Amino acid sequence: MTTPRSFKGTFFHAPVCGGIEVLRDTLIRCDAEGRILEVLRPDAPTYAEALSEERVAGRLETLPEGTYALPGFCDLHIHAPQWLQLGKALDVPLEVWLQKHTFPLEARYADLSFARRAYEGLVDDLLSNGTTTALYFATQHQDATRLLADICLTKGQRALIGKVAMDNPEQCPDFYVESTDAALRGTKAFIDHVRSLNSDLIKPVVTPRFIASCTDAALEGLGDIARRCGCHVQTHCSESDWEHNYVLDRHGREDTDSLDRFGLLTRHTVLAHANFISDANMQTIHDRGAGVAHCPLSNYYFSNAVFPLKRALEKGVRVGLGTDISGGPSASIYDNMRWAVASSRALHDGVDARLHWDNRGIRDSQIDWRTAFYLATKGGAEALDLPVGSFEPGRYFDAQLIDPQAPTGTIRLMDDLDSDADVLQKIVYTASKANIARVWVAAQCVVGSV
Amino acid sequence: MTTPRSFKGTFFHAPVCGGIEVLRDTLIRCDAEGRILEVLRPDAPTYAEALSEERVAGRLETLPEGTYALPGFCDLHIHAPQWLQLGKALDVPLEVWLQKHTFPLEARYADLSFARRAYEGLVDDLLSNGTTTALYFATQHQDATRLLADICLTKGQRALIGKVAMDNPEQCPDFYVESTDAALRGTKAFIDHVRSLNSDLIKPVVTPRFIASCTDAALEGLGDIARRCGCHVQTHCSESDWEHNYVLDRHGREDTDSLDRFGLLTRHTVLAHANFISDANMQTIHDRGAGVAHCPLSNYYFSNAVFPLKRALEKGVRVGLGTDISGGPSASIYDNMRWAVASSRALHDGVDARLHWDNRGIRDSQIDWRTAFYLATKGGAEALDLPVGSFEPGRYFDAQLIDPQAPTGTIRLMDDLDSDADVLQKIVYTASKANIARVWVAAQCVVGSV
Ligand SMILES: [Zn+2]
Ligand SMILES: [Zn+2]
Repeated sequence: MTTPRSFKGTFFHAPVCGGIEVLRDTLIRCDAEGRILEVLRPDAPTYAEALSEERVAGRLETLPEGTYALPGFCDLHIHAPQWLQLGKALDVPLEVWLQKHTFPLEARYADLSFARRAYEGLVDDLLSNGTTTALYFATQHQDATRLLADICLTKGQRALIGKVAMDNPEQCPDFYVESTDAALRGTKAFIDHVRSLNSDLIKPVVTPRFIASCTDAALEGLGDIARRCGCHVQTHCSESDWEHNYVLDRHGREDTDSLDRFGLLTRHTVLAHANFISDANMQTIHDRGAGVAHCPLSNYYFSNAVFPLKRALEKGVRVGLGTDISGGPSASIYDNMRWAVASSRALHDGVDARLHWDNRGIRDSQIDWRTAFYLATKGGAEALDLPVGSFEPGRYFDAQLIDPQAPTGTIRLMDDLDSDADVLQKIVYTASKANIARVWVAAQCVVGSV
Repeated sequence: MTTPRSFKGTFFHAPVCGGIEVLRDTLIRCDAEGRILEVLRPDAPTYAEALSEERVAGRLETLPEGTYALPGFCDLHIHAPQWLQLGKALDVPLEVWLQKHTFPLEARYADLSFARRAYEGLVDDLLSNGTTTALYFATQHQDATRLLADICLTKGQRALIGKVAMDNPEQCPDFYVESTDAALRGTKAFIDHVRSLNSDLIKPVVTPRFIASCTDAALEGLGDIARRCGCHVQTHCSESDWEHNYVLDRHGREDTDSLDRFGLLTRHTVLAHANFISDANMQTIHDRGAGVAHCPLSNYYFSNAVFPLKRALEKGVRVGLGTDISGGPSASIYDNMRWAVASSRALHDGVDARLHWDNRGIRDSQIDWRTAFYLATKGGAEALDLPVGSFEPGRYFDAQLIDPQAPTGTIRLMDDLDSDADVLQKIVYTASKANIARVWVAAQCVVGSV
């Protein structure tokens, strides 16, 4: 595919949840597909030899002094068409947001030139924000959804993409609804299309928007497709009071159990939000091996409670982070790491000062920045069952280079005062897009010049 | 002082809480001190004449096409010495944070060269983040605090600065405590020093760190000084369970009443946090005309509840925003606008999904981005009783220029899809430092080239 590449520099990653590892002056060798072959620290016996071998072969990229490489982010929940309204329409209730803003906007993707402008902007934006793997809801439209796949492939972003299925006329507007047949055949056709691209970078995803927007026939058919194709599944799950109660009313069970019954809860399923899941739901999600896209920023706008993140992690549920563009008004997983820490603290402490602390929140719900960093990287990769998210042999070298001195950046390091862990903590809390100097997917540079 | 300046461009501001005003192609004329003389819209009868007059006199600055000017931000709560640990030490409890990190760091400002490095970096950082007015806690040290005043004056930031008073040996560490006499004489000496600078830009602030860190004798003396000098006062108020209860135990009353008894609650007082104030406290704060520095991001880390912002605004309390560097890990008031909206929504909705919505939060606690924008600008100015924060005659032209196209920026506008209000909403939600192209204080450019 391309020449093998190696990288020498300082790397931060989180091989396990809650832990961080600093790889100073380390050599990472990749194969021709961009998978990591070995990670050699300076004290490894073969370090000097390997370094000179890579250098002589012209395969070595030395990261600039004072920069740090982190794994690229996995964003587990993005509504690709909504990128155009990022940071807009956030002061209206969900109903107005959907009917007046979001559905009309999504319907416009019937127009391919409209779609092209948006999707090119979106993929550039996410890559330059350090998101190397993206799980996308597209729209109902075949053509625009294929275009999104083409654009991700061209720009080199690792992407899992779903044509959105939404055939329930009771919950979808006239101008943006499809037949059950169109939902199922469209899903199948898009899967076939993506597989014909024959790229390891792009994967198709069975995507019922949420239970409310689909008929039972569609949910059943989509479950069938997911089983037969063995591909990923994504949908919303127990996001808000309204949505959670809607499913209870219609199916007499919670989202989790309902999705499970339709065969939509698999090792390759990612459930967006899951704020209202019970302990039993959590156990089911865990047992099926499904993952959760925790979208802490979006939840402040369109949910009515905080996802019990710490509890889910303790139960062994796979969790990653999602921006939920445009329910969340930021395209940055950095922001979402910060919101994840903060909202977990709010769950721990509660919010109402008039209550005694004992009755205010849910004790031991808080996570720290290390866990947030794991969720943004390897946690997301594990939820997707993809070999990315950390600098370990066998995983793709998907990475971002942080330049703390970038003139318009927002990181302030003090050489004499900051330890390595401090540096990473400062990056997690204060980096912005301007600090991301370079991005690689499968060892290929996709943002910044080498 | 300098030549009068005028500005032509598109301006956004919030003259009243909850409202926004768009001034397209408007001419703002300032006097020699940088105060706004008049604001002329294109349909004003004298617009054309005034424009040509300003142009001919070489006084006109035309803002580049596609840029937008906003009022500069007022940051009502900054611990200047803690800027060096911004984004660090956030995963430890308050006690550890204070004793192990914060007090030892602050103590180092006895060293003036250490202080210079930090304070120069801080003031540059805040100005380039659009903060034109800053209310600072410095340290105990006379010399370093004077240095901060000098640096603000040199760099052109409007600043209110307090030498921190902390004389209670029971609550302050050995290496960072002063005598009551040093606290009082130091405060007085710093006020005299600032007044000798004879600048409208820098004001002194009586600054008991918080009640716990001061003896009653110090609080009484500081109340006297505040009354005699008529200057500003700042302190922490009912921030967390611990702090709130400490004062109840020691004084048998809440922070608000205790501060009031010492004469520290005036029209020129800014109370940081105030999360645990009762309705009666709120009334007292309102009656004295004092203001609150709401620090929503910091509160996720070091408080245990959400400030009842909407309730305070409804009662007519003056509120602005504070970063609380480094309790809050961001130097940006943009971030704090976003956290203010989000935390108000969390207070409204509550956090615990297991509770029925009716018992989960406090209804009608949420604010929207318009209110957040007001708090960041004119709200902060009103809390400080300073004529800044909006583009109205009589106020200083303290402003920031937003360039939505800045290459490393984070705003994505769509000319054909975004209204003026959408543009401002997108700026509030998605701007980052890289989008701030220019900053003026009193019509003088202090960041960016003209
Ligand atoms: Zn969503
Ligand atoms: Zn503070």
